[in-house]
Amino acid sequence: MTPTGPAASFATRRGAVAEALVAAGARSMLVTDPRNIAYLTGFRGSGGAVLLSDDGEAVLCTDSRYELQIVEQAPDVGHVISREYVAGVLGRRREPADAPLAVEADHLTLAAAAALRDALTEVGSGGAPVVETRGLVEGVRRVKDAGELDLITRSCRVLDEAWTHVLTTGLVAAGRSEREVAADLEHAMRHAGSEGTAFDTIVASGPNGALPHHEPGDRLLADGDLVVVDFGATVGGYASDCTRTVALGAASDRLIEAYDVVLRAQLAGLGAVRPGLPCAELDAVSREVIAAAGLGDHFGHSLGHGVGLDVHEAPAVSARSTSTLTDGDVITVEPGVYLPGLGGIRIEDTVAVTSGGGRALTTTSKALAVL
Amino acid sequence: MTPTGPAASFATRRGAVAEALVAAGARSMLVTDPRNIAYLTGFRGSGGAVLLSDDGEAVLCTDSRYELQIVEQAPDVGHVISREYVAGVLGRRREPADAPLAVEADHLTLAAAAALRDALTEVGSGGAPVVETRGLVEGVRRVKDAGELDLITRSCRVLDEAWTHVLTTGLVAAGRSEREVAADLEHAMRHAGSEGTAFDTIVASGPNGALPHHEPGDRLLADGDLVVVDFGATVGGYASDCTRTVALGAASDRLIEAYDVVLRAQLAGLGAVRPGLPCAELDAVSREVIAAAGLGDHFGHSLGHGVGLDVHEAPAVSARSTSTLTDGDVITVEPGVYLPGLGGIRIEDTVAVTSGGGRALTTTSKALAVL
Repeated sequence: MTPTGPAASFATRRGAVAEALVAAGARSMLVTDPRNIAYLTGFRGSGGAVLLSDDGEAVLCTDSRYELQIVEQAPDVGHVISREYVAGVLGRRREPADAPLAVEADHLTLAAAAALRDALTEVGSGGAPVVETRGLVEGVRRVKDAGELDLITRSCRVLDEAWTHVLTTGLVAAGRSEREVAADLEHAMRHAGSEGTAFDTIVASGPNGALPHHEPGDRLLADGDLVVVDFGATVGGYASDCTRTVALGAASDRLIEAYDVVLRAQLAGLGAVRPGLPCAELDAVSREVIAAAGLGDHFGHSLGHGVGLDVHEAPAVSARSTSTLTDGDVITVEPGVYLPGLGGIRIEDTVAVTSGGGRALTTTSKALAVL
Repeated sequence: MTPTGPAASFATRRGAVAEALVAAGARSMLVTDPRNIAYLTGFRGSGGAVLLSDDGEAVLCTDSRYELQIVEQAPDVGHVISREYVAGVLGRRREPADAPLAVEADHLTLAAAAALRDALTEVGSGGAPVVETRGLVEGVRRVKDAGELDLITRSCRVLDEAWTHVLTTGLVAAGRSEREVAADLEHAMRHAGSEGTAFDTIVASGPNGALPHHEPGDRLLADGDLVVVDFGATVGGYASDCTRTVALGAASDRLIEAYDVVLRAQLAGLGAVRPGLPCAELDAVSREVIAAAGLGDHFGHSLGHGVGLDVHEAPAVSARSTSTLTDGDVITVEPGVYLPGLGGIRIEDTVAVTSGGGRALTTTSKALAVL
């Protein structure tokens, strides 16, 4: 049941975050983001709170729905059962009453922050400074350990299997609705071992392909369409993310030329991946291929994003990103071109950043399949 | 494509929230919760911000991924395309520079609140008071209009169809894994018209049934098991929520007796639903049936919750709830009993609260099915 690796990994992760919280001027940290809780403890319930001390010890509070699950998933941390998650962990605080407490400024809401101040007062720590931190756990999460890479690789293998299944069994075909194709692809992902979908599956056919985040609807796939399919699995809590674009019969020359541009942009990006490369430069590598073909105005989104417990996490791979690629990052490389009224193309792999360069973890063919 | 009703409904909803924001002492409101944005405008993209003025006019900002979608889904509100959602809408602010601005304290994070203060300064409104509000949009959302009730009813019909399909085609059977059953049920929901799942499907067999939020795994369903199946669909953005528990072959007397207790508790709760009843009293009606059977210690969660754009929304139906049922609420009634090591039972309907009492919108049989 433990989703993200052996207990030793969790202790290592907690140790790294403990160092970061001390560097931020705190003595302990309240962790409320569910993904960060899963990363630090293994617990994957939908609600809870963790108090992490500066020595890497953690206490987890969740409610009675998870009383058995907490023992199975997070055996090596202390736990408290209560509906009052924050008060539950603060009651176990070992630091002096006035020791500074770090919080996650990107997760804690204004209402939760007010409730936290009340809870601190109740446990006699009303004077404890609250240190607003950003990205402390996410910064550690960004570089994947071996157990995480294994889970992401398995999550990508699910995508490969499911995509191969729907292509070889004729499930992507003229006359079928976008919604039917999405249903069959998700079913294939489940049967290949996915715990669910990492995000809402996109099946965007014909003109709908020009909407990068189109929801699959009742439109029937038709001869001459390009069909953009963007899908993700979850294995052991870890996401994967892949997009393929296929043609049904004879698509127009304009669309086929645009496909070729996007494929060259994707391969150029994938080939440029290496530790030490600024993410903004990687974005530029693919973007320049598309701009050189005169299609720069039709690629409005960023090139990619990190993938892990969240399907969108650090680092951002965009023109404005200030991050630099690191050995252990897992990112997407997903250029696209969107032609209003005509259709769209996006080609995406999940990619491990290694000392040897980028290794695509999604491996199905990117040559234009004509179905 | 418009998910939640005709333009007139959106204007009515915005008018109601505009009144509430004025009553809270503000002149306009920044709405950042995606469900609240969908409710007020129809836009269902994953990122954006809305500025709602005291006259009910709204401006929506989202990024270029949604440039076409915004026109289709939210044709009757002004819009701005920018990655800086909050700055994008603040630039369209019509109120005096120092007019108070309401924000959603249950959604805005500490980091977003800091960014908002910077953005206000940039548009020359650094002196504008920020009014932290809670539940303004949610309070209006709680009472469903006719279009919403229709969508929730359709969402529930998907559950009925899918559940009937998996039962009548033998997909819930000894020897199949929890994961396979979940996959097939989700596939059936998709084919019955669901846009996806409203939450992670639960299939908890045998001893796993004692974990109310068990994730479907590799355990094979076995003779003598009770199997708890909790599943939800989405139609037009609206959730539905249903749980059924079935037996495979001869379950133990203890489990069958507990099933009978939970069913009586569920029917008692359902029969007690009426506008004007405090939610805590409704919770007590079902809870007392379970307590009277000596199983009170094995029902740790609350009786139910509101259902709408979120699968969990107002009102809470729990012992601690201070809400009172209102004509137009849609809630779940879902008592359960969890016996560690043995198994669990939960029976749940999505229920419309009407002047004539509670009307279950999920309608498949609740008599114990022995498969």
